[in-house]
Amino acid sequence: MTVEKALQQLEELQRKIYALQYAEAAISLDAVTVAPPDTAKGRSLAQGVISGYLYPLFSGKETGDLLTYLTEHKEELTPLSARQVEELQRKYDEIHRMPEEENTAYSMLLNDAQDVWHKAKAQDDYQAFAPYLERIIEANRKKAAYMDESQPPYDVLLGLYEQGLTTAQLDSFFARLRETIVPLLKRIREQGRVIDDSFLYQEYPIEKQRELSDYLMEILGIDRAHCTIGETEHPFTMNFDKEDVRITTKYHKNNFTSSMYSVIHESGHALYELGVGDEYQYTILAGGVSMGIHESQSRLYENMLGRSEAFIQRIYPKLVELFPKQLSGVTAQDLYLAVNQVEPSLIRIDADELTYCLHIMVRYEIEKKMIAGEVAVSELPALWAELMKEYLGVEVPNDRDGILQDSHWSGGSIGYFPSYALGSAYAAQFIHRMEQDIPVYELVAQGDFQTINAWLDTHIHQYGCFYSPAELFRRCCGEEFDPQYYLDYLTQKYTKIYRLS
Amino acid sequence: MTVEKALQQLEELQRKIYALQYAEAAISLDAVTVAPPDTAKGRSLAQGVISGYLYPLFSGKETGDLLTYLTEHKEELTPLSARQVEELQRKYDEIHRMPEEENTAYSMLLNDAQDVWHKAKAQDDYQAFAPYLERIIEANRKKAAYMDESQPPYDVLLGLYEQGLTTAQLDSFFARLRETIVPLLKRIREQGRVIDDSFLYQEYPIEKQRELSDYLMEILGIDRAHCTIGETEHPFTMNFDKEDVRITTKYHKNNFTSSMYSVIHESGHALYELGVGDEYQYTILAGGVSMGIHESQSRLYENMLGRSEAFIQRIYPKLVELFPKQLSGVTAQDLYLAVNQVEPSLIRIDADELTYCLHIMVRYEIEKKMIAGEVAVSELPALWAELMKEYLGVEVPNDRDGILQDSHWSGGSIGYFPSYALGSAYAAQFIHRMEQDIPVYELVAQGDFQTINAWLDTHIHQYGCFYSPAELFRRCCGEEFDPQYYLDYLTQKYTKIYRLS
Repeated sequence: MTVEKALQQLEELQRKIYALQYAEAAISLDAVTVAPPDTAKGRSLAQGVISGYLYPLFSGKETGDLLTYLTEHKEELTPLSARQVEELQRKYDEIHRMPEEENTAYSMLLNDAQDVWHKAKAQDDYQAFAPYLERIIEANRKKAAYMDESQPPYDVLLGLYEQGLTTAQLDSFFARLRETIVPLLKRIREQGRVIDDSFLYQEYPIEKQRELSDYLMEILGIDRAHCTIGETEHPFTMNFDKEDVRITTKYHKNNFTSSMYSVIHESGHALYELGVGDEYQYTILAGGVSMGIHESQSRLYENMLGRSEAFIQRIYPKLVELFPKQLSGVTAQDLYLAVNQVEPSLIRIDADELTYCLHIMVRYEIEKKMIAGEVAVSELPALWAELMKEYLGVEVPNDRDGILQDSHWSGGSIGYFPSYALGSAYAAQFIHRMEQDIPVYELVAQGDFQTINAWLDTHIHQYGCFYSPAELFRRCCGEEFDPQYYLDYLTQKYTKIYRLS
Repeated sequence: MTVEKALQQLEELQRKIYALQYAEAAISLDAVTVAPPDTAKGRSLAQGVISGYLYPLFSGKETGDLLTYLTEHKEELTPLSARQVEELQRKYDEIHRMPEEENTAYSMLLNDAQDVWHKAKAQDDYQAFAPYLERIIEANRKKAAYMDESQPPYDVLLGLYEQGLTTAQLDSFFARLRETIVPLLKRIREQGRVIDDSFLYQEYPIEKQRELSDYLMEILGIDRAHCTIGETEHPFTMNFDKEDVRITTKYHKNNFTSSMYSVIHESGHALYELGVGDEYQYTILAGGVSMGIHESQSRLYENMLGRSEAFIQRIYPKLVELFPKQLSGVTAQDLYLAVNQVEPSLIRIDADELTYCLHIMVRYEIEKKMIAGEVAVSELPALWAELMKEYLGVEVPNDRDGILQDSHWSGGSIGYFPSYALGSAYAAQFIHRMEQDIPVYELVAQGDFQTINAWLDTHIHQYGCFYSPAELFRRCCGEEFDPQYYLDYLTQKYTKIYRLS
């Protein structure tokens, strides 16, 4: 073996991973967009085989030996190759102790579980989903143990989505959020200002909403030669590579802002992927570095920019052009208030910006207990209802609008939810830092997203997975993460909207 | 090695092939439906890797050894396993002599060529496509030589799409067709009957045409839980497996019959795939046996049934319901005549049933010369024009509507076109045989496609690739293939429509 030869193998390995993950992406995208309904069996078989090809690439002896050799010759590697080795080693350590059969069985379990969850949700039948959730929790516990027995299992799982994140950090983070958000929400409700948003719920033709999506992607500076928009039950962003990104949305006939904010949210994710440096293409360092950082980008566009007065002023003429009848008599200020109305509710994805984090806290508390085995699967709906009442003050009438609402657990993602809350808090600190360099909201008012995107490309997007999330954050902000920026942002915004002072 | 162990390996091998071909299908489907435009590079890389995984499954030493062992123990195998071994051996012999690098390079060439062809066609720029066509022809010649040096290369290529088919057979088949079709066409043109089809070219809203597609698939008995319809530039059928089939169509605002007959045609393909026996699922024997037999099913539905008086009578009320203004004053008989009008034209896919085969003959003559090296790539447009003039009597004004019109060559398919003509002729003989058992056109008039589908399932579809095309044909028809049935069908049909006798 020579270093040169090993580097060739390293490149080939990453191309194979790229290609098989490309295939996985194409198969899942097809599954949620155009595939006929009763086709899960063949797909599951195919996915199992593809996953069987991927598994040894991440965790086989050949990969292990290659990584050991290259680590021993670290001094001779470029920083880029060294980071590739490091990142592959991290994934190797994550996976290689889990037997391949367990890995394949887990993929197939998830495939079935997603199908079952879909039906269970439609039929409000938690009992149907419970045995699958039980097995998914068990598999996640085992996975955590395989990866690192010295750490609490939930910490290990959190690290899958946000490297280095711990329960201790999150406990403190969520406590800070609770201290500010819960009293703020109380003041808003006591103040009693009623915002009229009834005009949002008229009929907004889907065709016109599609035009709005194109308009939004255009002003946000999305390169349509490399990014399409589709329609799915649950909006998402999928990246094949930095030259091929897909976002999806869901149109609701009686509310155009639902899709509008989906499109802006997913555009934030897409801009991250589209902005990753060319040097990472087809390698393990391609794509966004973590769920938290990714979500910071989507929330930054959706909330900090997309729900700002400047943005609403900017797009208002286009909205009136598309929906002249529906928005007749509605001012930009009316619209600004309507899209920022605070109203505790049952469904996370429909939640307003302020109460959103409370939904995440419910899931966080449940996940901690779930993985620690402190609550039985059969008791989860009751726990859900209890926490929703405690944090948001709402009654949960059924499981469809309760514990069955999210797809995450059926997809095996336990420990993922906190990254949503973290992302919002990251975003506030990014905006604070950005304002030191460029007049963010003036640019938004002018519709100059190029300058904003360029700033984010320079400070965040371009690095792909080169830096760890924490390091990327420090390099961008010049200081550690501090949720105070987010809390100040929320307090100022809602104090003004609800005239609290 | 034991036979039991070898059979397990045989099953595993076929599942891997299934899964990787599933991935290939998902990737290509995505490419022609929703992928953003400038994404060919990553896709090409991914396809190259997937093809690299498939290659050794079909042609590697391990597969070769397994097949040799199982062939030696043929007596101990079930007929099903024995046929799987035979079919895999055929593919092994087809591929294993071609070096893997050449195979991968060829996949990547085709990927690029399809992209170039798309642009060349749009820009009417044959020169841009010519160097790719040159390399594709060369690669096909080499491929044929690797497969069987003792046969003429074009015969070897024909066999890829219709096992056993030779130039000698096709020369005689096409000569028979020419002898009947050319004089028949001459008589039609001399007779001079003018059929009014102007009502076809009004505005037919796409939304209504989509409803028509759903209606057609329903009456044809397509199980929508296992088959969807999408929209693409060129209609096609893609089968993931017998439980997951996709058809596509293209809607033209000013002609509803274009999509209508695409849908019926692709439904014919889909019914074949949906009707394959369960015992072939996920094996090499799944799916239709050959391009000729496949095309017989699509043409049987599209032309023999779909353009019959019985069918037009059956769907006429629905058409009037969907398009009351456009079809006002148009009788079912008017429509029947309009969809059967004969008019030599430039574009194969828009050709009427009678002149269609002449388009195929043009391509057949060119392919023979192309592969034999008897004509330079630069001379092909002139040869195209010459043959179009000779067979169809039309002048070719440009390459976009001439040699660049079809995607086949850019996709590497040389020797494929004849199966279209063969399919029509097979279909006529199948219908003749079917009429001995069931009153075909009475059933069509009643909209009872269940009985027709069941007959085709029993006699053709269910067998998948178990029998060779010729054997399947003989078992179904009880005699050898004879183009006379097709010629009689055409003569009778057009004699009546054009009142020639």
